[in-house]
Amino acid sequence: MQSFVFFMLNRIVACAIMSWKSIEGVKSMNTAAIYHRPDSEYAYLYDKDTMHIRLRTARADSKQVYLISGDPYLLDKEQWYQEKEPMKKIVSTDLYDYWFIEKKAKFKRLSYAFVIQSQVDIQAFYGDHGVFEVTDTYLKMPNNYFRMPYFHEVDRVKAQEWVSQTVWYQIFPERFANGDATNDPVDTLPWGSKNPDRQDFFGGDLQGVIDHLDYLEELGINGIYLCPIFEAHSNHKYDTIDYFKVDPAFGTDETLHELIDACHSRGMKVMLDAVFNHMGDTSPQWQDVLENGQQSKYADWFHVNEFPATYKIDDDFEEAHDLTYDVFAFTPHMPKLNTANPEVQDYLLSIATYWIETFDIDAWRLDVANEVDHHFWKKFRQACFAIKPDFYILGEIWHSSQSWLQGDEFDAVMNYAYTDAIMNYFVKRQIGLKKMVSDMANQLMLYRNQTNQMQLNVLDTHDTPRLLSETQGDKDLMRQVLAFTYIQPGVPCLYYGDEVGMTGEMDPDCRKCMVWDEEEQDGSLKGFVIDLISLRKTYASLLAKGTWEWQLVDEDTGLLTLKREWEGTSLIAQFNSGQEAQTVSKKGEILLNALTNQVDRELVIEPMGFVVAAYPILIEE
Amino acid sequence: MQSFVFFMLNRIVACAIMSWKSIEGVKSMNTAAIYHRPDSEYAYLYDKDTMHIRLRTARADSKQVYLISGDPYLLDKEQWYQEKEPMKKIVSTDLYDYWFIEKKAKFKRLSYAFVIQSQVDIQAFYGDHGVFEVTDTYLKMPNNYFRMPYFHEVDRVKAQEWVSQTVWYQIFPERFANGDATNDPVDTLPWGSKNPDRQDFFGGDLQGVIDHLDYLEELGINGIYLCPIFEAHSNHKYDTIDYFKVDPAFGTDETLHELIDACHSRGMKVMLDAVFNHMGDTSPQWQDVLENGQQSKYADWFHVNEFPATYKIDDDFEEAHDLTYDVFAFTPHMPKLNTANPEVQDYLLSIATYWIETFDIDAWRLDVANEVDHHFWKKFRQACFAIKPDFYILGEIWHSSQSWLQGDEFDAVMNYAYTDAIMNYFVKRQIGLKKMVSDMANQLMLYRNQTNQMQLNVLDTHDTPRLLSETQGDKDLMRQVLAFTYIQPGVPCLYYGDEVGMTGEMDPDCRKCMVWDEEEQDGSLKGFVIDLISLRKTYASLLAKGTWEWQLVDEDTGLLTLKREWEGTSLIAQFNSGQEAQTVSKKGEILLNALTNQVDRELVIEPMGFVVAAYPILIEE
Repeated sequence: MQSFVFFMLNRIVACAIMSWKSIEGVKSMNTAAIYHRPDSEYAYLYDKDTMHIRLRTARADSKQVYLISGDPYLLDKEQWYQEKEPMKKIVSTDLYDYWFIEKKAKFKRLSYAFVIQSQVDIQAFYGDHGVFEVTDTYLKMPNNYFRMPYFHEVDRVKAQEWVSQTVWYQIFPERFANGDATNDPVDTLPWGSKNPDRQDFFGGDLQGVIDHLDYLEELGINGIYLCPIFEAHSNHKYDTIDYFKVDPAFGTDETLHELIDACHSRGMKVMLDAVFNHMGDTSPQWQDVLENGQQSKYADWFHVNEFPATYKIDDDFEEAHDLTYDVFAFTPHMPKLNTANPEVQDYLLSIATYWIETFDIDAWRLDVANEVDHHFWKKFRQACFAIKPDFYILGEIWHSSQSWLQGDEFDAVMNYAYTDAIMNYFVKRQIGLKKMVSDMANQLMLYRNQTNQMQLNVLDTHDTPRLLSETQGDKDLMRQVLAFTYIQPGVPCLYYGDEVGMTGEMDPDCRKCMVWDEEEQDGSLKGFVIDLISLRKTYASLLAKGTWEWQLVDEDTGLLTLKREWEGTSLIAQFNSGQEAQTVSKKGEILLNALTNQVDRELVIEPMGFVVAAYPILIEE
Repeated sequence: MQSFVFFMLNRIVACAIMSWKSIEGVKSMNTAAIYHRPDSEYAYLYDKDTMHIRLRTARADSKQVYLISGDPYLLDKEQWYQEKEPMKKIVSTDLYDYWFIEKKAKFKRLSYAFVIQSQVDIQAFYGDHGVFEVTDTYLKMPNNYFRMPYFHEVDRVKAQEWVSQTVWYQIFPERFANGDATNDPVDTLPWGSKNPDRQDFFGGDLQGVIDHLDYLEELGINGIYLCPIFEAHSNHKYDTIDYFKVDPAFGTDETLHELIDACHSRGMKVMLDAVFNHMGDTSPQWQDVLENGQQSKYADWFHVNEFPATYKIDDDFEEAHDLTYDVFAFTPHMPKLNTANPEVQDYLLSIATYWIETFDIDAWRLDVANEVDHHFWKKFRQACFAIKPDFYILGEIWHSSQSWLQGDEFDAVMNYAYTDAIMNYFVKRQIGLKKMVSDMANQLMLYRNQTNQMQLNVLDTHDTPRLLSETQGDKDLMRQVLAFTYIQPGVPCLYYGDEVGMTGEMDPDCRKCMVWDEEEQDGSLKGFVIDLISLRKTYASLLAKGTWEWQLVDEDTGLLTLKREWEGTSLIAQFNSGQEAQTVSKKGEILLNALTNQVDRELVIEPMGFVVAAYPILIEE
């Protein structure tokens, strides 16, 4: 083989080395922990004229942070930066402080950087090219500023107002209520006659939901989230056969029309569950692939790595590792759809739009949303929003989801990480109080504020044990956890039957038949839930958009005080998560001030007790 | 105003507090500096079967980093993580080390996390919920792993092979060559008769480019980037009047056809410049707005904040601050287009596709690309690639550009920050050697490897002083900087005339007429550039895709050695950027081994000298 040599020998050049002071001088600061990402959840348009800017620094490392900013086309002119404004520390995690500022700009564009003041008053300049000492050199380098090039309303992530006003109720249709015995599957078991096994049917249907809308309205529910209702083999219907057909055991097109119209006339929204990652193996498309192999006109609808599409059943039909086609998890009866195929896209988009256009649904919940490609979801959003501009798209994603939440795919995801933090502390006692607060803050800082307002906060679903089973039957603890969750940013979602004290371990036990016998229902718990939903709806805007500030996080006593504030109203909530009663006057002065007119000054909060108070801010002043 | 009070007093619950060890035990590590962002430049599909995973840690803080990973649906089964593999430290900056690993997965999906070993052998677990001690508890929390949910080829950022094989030549058409005197504007000045003023015309045109294709081919150029050629008022043509018309002073449709066909037959690509952020104020659309105000059918084509659209001319036509409509910078004759308006989108997309369909252009360079909205650019990409699947889209963005480079907008941006680092060290001497290396590494880590392969590396353009003016006429230094830039990842772009020794200060001086008189050309410099382009093209794949490793960065002597390696070939380059001659045998043993057969063992590299050697890897071993 040939080598290539290329060289030059030249003469000396004399050249003055100017100084460029790097981070040497700011070593006392944890400069490596400083982080900002332009055009992301760290810098975004909140309303059409207002940017939100966040900065991350190491916890307790900085005394103050300033935003310096100016118009990009004036930075290298006579004025260097036009404004220097202090940022506010909004949350802290175990590792970080997060700083925040709202910013407007006359010409709808902004160059900005940060001046960070350490605890010992050393200052650092942080811009697009890193961290430096604050000197004239850096202040005067226009390329060292971050940029919001233009305030584009079309690119802004928008929060649909109705979403944050909603309290959802999740229904697993086969188990909520049997309103029409004529459509019951063969071998339907008597309602609630036993704890469900994986393959059982109990006859729940859409008519059953219609029959109980009064019940839901009494609870205060204003959004129904239905698990899949399209024709499918199983009781859970995640193995779709025909996406254009209501499962005959659930009802007909007419039943669904009636349900949705009835909901809308009561001011309730309806969210359906779309399973677009995979199909059921009894679908005609997959059956055609099995029959005709590579010659099937659906051969490219799936991810078949080698024809024929086969698998050996291991010890479990749910767990095959030697298949020649891609599936959901390892379940051979759920072949994965090839959403890069334009035919598949057209097919799925026609489903997405059909149920909006023909049935006027308000939202799609997307099953296994993370495993479907981004290209498809972008088209999906465009198709849905072209028909209904205030639609809502909720993705099932359990992990960090920034790349799906940039405004052109989903509005929100199921907020498991956020509610996990709550469960891990209050219920499972696997983490301490400070760790919970840290985990919650971490989650909030992953997304834009308007996204946080639309996140779905679930404490249990058809995929987890029920809350009351997690609390080992402790209803006081359940109440405390519910109350804590309902005052968070993000939208609460109640799993059917929790409100009357239903229990259930992991699937299929958490899918028991709804208890309708009032003597078996816990009326007191139900009353509590009604009050809680009422509280949530009364302060929905505050709870969605308000500030989020911990006033007390006491690991020793277990007392914690969260303050939310928005447009002249404060909501303060204090929880006793410890094991001893606490006198609020000692630990929660601010709260007490708010309550002075309502409760005794020596208010004692017992373990698992809590107080929620909302008041006009002027009272405090 | 009404207050709302809500409280409960409950009894004690006994509950075992399990331990959840947080970062307490790993305090000796700078845990706050650890960073990974799933589904981003930190974790992406490189080819259809291979993921790239990066991790950032504080510089010199970790001894080793391991990736632990497994199938997401096996993590909570019998096997916890299936693999633990060491990652490689690929680059370091002033603040960070970056670790890297390539990863395949049998089922095209991956759960992964990191085990980080500190200098004192303490280990930390870093996953989706933060940094913890390595204990069974964390290893066994499936939700604490990052996810690549599925290897979607459709979402993969793809590098067009031809792009990395290209050496571009940027032409400012009014100043390259006058091939047709019959289309000269009124008052055209004799070619090269003076240094250009802002409003001068010298008669350059497309025929002039055609006439000199032999010249470009002799240089080795295989891509021509033309500044705007559509009808416009100015000599620079950034104030478009008619996007569908070649400027009459530049030629006709036929001339452009002839130019592009001639280029293609010589294996040269052609890139045109699209100015979609704004139009010229003499365009019929803007004139209609001025005439008819709010009643104009183009009223919503621009961003008019208040009708009538007016401004007062300050002391400068280029700088009006009191206008009632948005413009590029502060220039009232460049009204900003409203790209959120579907009519404007259709209009601009029809332009984008017209020049591809009708003239077969290969690439668009997008002027002021950062100030146009993301929604539009996504549609723009789809439209271009639907016609030409190996098209190339280059955005003019000077700052960090992650949000434009996710694969659904641009392929690359003009890599100013990267070449600035080179200029700031070698030429301007504003930073030290280590700082340059740090800045270059920072830029490379902002983007996926395939994006880095397509970035456009410019040392000067029509918007900056010429390289030879920046080196104050020092041609040896110019050669050294060119050589250093041409062995980088990213595609070099030569500004017309640099190769024959043209000088020029900031615009308009950098837009002088091309020197065609061979007696005024520097033939030696031109010969050097021909050799350099030949080197670049010979090793184009290696230079694009190869590893990037500093073997020597010696601030004292100014010696630096960069090694690039790919598929069995190494390219090693050593530069003396200091002020004294250096004997390579002392400072560059590895280089010398490679050169043993070609040059004297006591090779001396003078200041501004350099050696580039490529050889099969087997020689070294």
